[in-house]
Amino acid sequence: MKQYLNVMIVMNMLLIHLLTNIRCLFTFLYLNSSIKTLTAGKTHKDIDVGSVALARSCQALHHGATAVESILGFTENKEYQSWNAVKVSKTWYKRKPDETDIDILTSQTKLAARLYGADLVGMAELDRNFVYSHVAKNRFRPKEDRNRKAINFKDIEYPEENDTELIIPNSVNNVIVMGIGNAREILQTAPSAMTHAHSSIGYTRQSVAVLSMCEFIRSQGYVAIPCSNTTVLQVPMAIAAGLGQAGRLGTLITPEFGPNLKVVSVLTNMPLRHDKPIDFGVTEFCETCKKCARECPSKSITEGPRTFTARNTCSQDGVLKWQNDYMKCLEYWGEGGTNCSVCLSVCPYTKGAAWIHDVIGVTIDKMRFLDPVLLG
Amino acid sequence: MKQYLNVMIVMNMLLIHLLTNIRCLFTFLYLNSSIKTLTAGKTHKDIDVGSVALARSCQALHHGATAVESILGFTENKEYQSWNAVKVSKTWYKRKPDETDIDILTSQTKLAARLYGADLVGMAELDRNFVYSHVAKNRFRPKEDRNRKAINFKDIEYPEENDTELIIPNSVNNVIVMGIGNAREILQTAPSAMTHAHSSIGYTRQSVAVLSMCEFIRSQGYVAIPCSNTTVLQVPMAIAAGLGQAGRLGTLITPEFGPNLKVVSVLTNMPLRHDKPIDFGVTEFCETCKKCARECPSKSITEGPRTFTARNTCSQDGVLKWQNDYMKCLEYWGEGGTNCSVCLSVCPYTKGAAWIHDVIGVTIDKMRFLDPVLLG
Repeated sequence: MKQYLNVMIVMNMLLIHLLTNIRCLFTFLYLNSSIKTLTAGKTHKDIDVGSVALARSCQALHHGATAVESILGFTENKEYQSWNAVKVSKTWYKRKPDETDIDILTSQTKLAARLYGADLVGMAELDRNFVYSHVAKNRFRPKEDRNRKAINFKDIEYPEENDTELIIPNSVNNVIVMGIGNAREILQTAPSAMTHAHSSIGYTRQSVAVLSMCEFIRSQGYVAIPCSNTTVLQVPMAIAAGLGQAGRLGTLITPEFGPNLKVVSVLTNMPLRHDKPIDFGVTEFCETCKKCARECPSKSITEGPRTFTARNTCSQDGVLKWQNDYMKCLEYWGEGGTNCSVCLSVCPYTKGAAWIHDVIGVTIDKMRFLDPVLLG
Repeated sequence: MKQYLNVMIVMNMLLIHLLTNIRCLFTFLYLNSSIKTLTAGKTHKDIDVGSVALARSCQALHHGATAVESILGFTENKEYQSWNAVKVSKTWYKRKPDETDIDILTSQTKLAARLYGADLVGMAELDRNFVYSHVAKNRFRPKEDRNRKAINFKDIEYPEENDTELIIPNSVNNVIVMGIGNAREILQTAPSAMTHAHSSIGYTRQSVAVLSMCEFIRSQGYVAIPCSNTTVLQVPMAIAAGLGQAGRLGTLITPEFGPNLKVVSVLTNMPLRHDKPIDFGVTEFCETCKKCARECPSKSITEGPRTFTARNTCSQDGVLKWQNDYMKCLEYWGEGGTNCSVCLSVCPYTKGAAWIHDVIGVTIDKMRFLDPVLLG
């Protein structure tokens, strides 16, 4: 009888997962038929380029996806990425905060993040080790190169910029990290030209979320500094804020989206309750899986163990992690003319295998009588 | 045995719905605790205003939600609402279309809409009866009032504007209608100050979707005219495109979101397969329900039957519909200082009652032996 109940439990779990995923499945099937048409126009070097019409369609999908991010921008303290209020009036921004209760503020901020489009949100203490010493050099926008101004912390009330530096107030001690899940269906076409659109729509959504969040915080009377692939290293911030763990492929892996998400941060002096880092077994899983490394077309991802030694200037010594060759990776993007994204698409965590692992876990634990079948 | 099976079927349906909604439930409970805190600062005239801190928090949530829509704009043919290419280069926009297959274009456009954030999308033939004769007068932006230029159709290749008119090419014969579902949890606080944020985030998401979609179409070599509460009447367009039906409260009611969504359109000359209007019983339901009319604080919604006679200049004669007093509604917004939204929040379709109806439907049909219990 107990064994029968166990079988029922597992069958029920399978049923639940099937049903909760049924809408995703339909969406996938629908999208898939579109994708098959579009990706006949792949531009990747290993794959024949399709008709001009289809190649143009892929590019058009990307042009649409990138429109808003190209308006809201990427460069530190410029226009809509300003380190001070963009649309919020000074009356609100420069008025002393009225709400100072840490729990109320934390709860409000998490609500705001979700409203503004974040799928995941966490808070952590700002670790200045992960703030860049200088603004990033944007090689795609050489005119905006501002001689790599230094980023410094000083005793000032609001962020400032002068000819040689961008200055963050010393009061800025917290980071809000938001995760934006990407479209898995389109990722599955990697390394097609459609991965451009897949990536761009993530940037568009993160640019909306980060500007909205900054204006929310400023309106409450606190400082907010948007970090869209700028100012800070996102992955260690996201780990500290409890969003996920570092994976072999070098990006953040989350329980909800695997590595298939964008991460964007806001630095602030708003009092916030910190989240705790999580461990759902990524380190151990990546140790043995190695699928991303095997499938990486440019062989940029190491198949070896984690080490402290960086492989080139794209990484740094002194942190125990899988040391990958990001320079080689970027060169491959250039050659292929797409965002590649093969590592993201083949990662078992992206593929939603996590719940299968759950079921197998329960099965192995609760149903010893099935061992001969399941474990061979 | 058959009755037992029927009970199992219904129990199973209930279980499925419970499980598929369990994540929504958790999100709701979580958000609800935040909302209770925030809405102590309601500014509605009928309700005591809470502490300054809480009122400010509500306003801050709105400031964040409105930041992006205020950048991407609302006025016809201005900046990012341009009727011609915004970011897409002339090389792409003015090149003859390469893709002309109606089925491929329809499939690509539906995929693009979903990628750009639309929850619903449909296509219809453009009915010029629902295009405004003149540009809307934006009373919140008096400086932008351009003497109410006329909107005309002419034999030109690309949209144009001169001192007296905005001109749409005669080739523009299709409309793409996108629906953006709103956050139901926040709507439930209506008529609190938070409904501002609820509405604004909808506008932000629609401004992202509409600009992205226009740039996608232009990149393929077709004309795209964004209509964000401008240029056309959205509700009849949405009905024609199969998104939903007209409800008593005067807005679109969809099976997925009830009336709790934003609708935004794009006019184009891209060949597109048209969707068919749907009928899921809204007219009959609204005839008897009348909940929105009973609960409307300003009594702007009629409790009477549909008629052909408009009640004031906000509507027009000659269409059989529930004729509401939108002038009174807007005045009430002004008095209360919020977006009210009570009609949206009390509508049974918003409340997600649809699946309960499904279950009751199946129950009544399959389980006659329960009639004495269920039907009293």
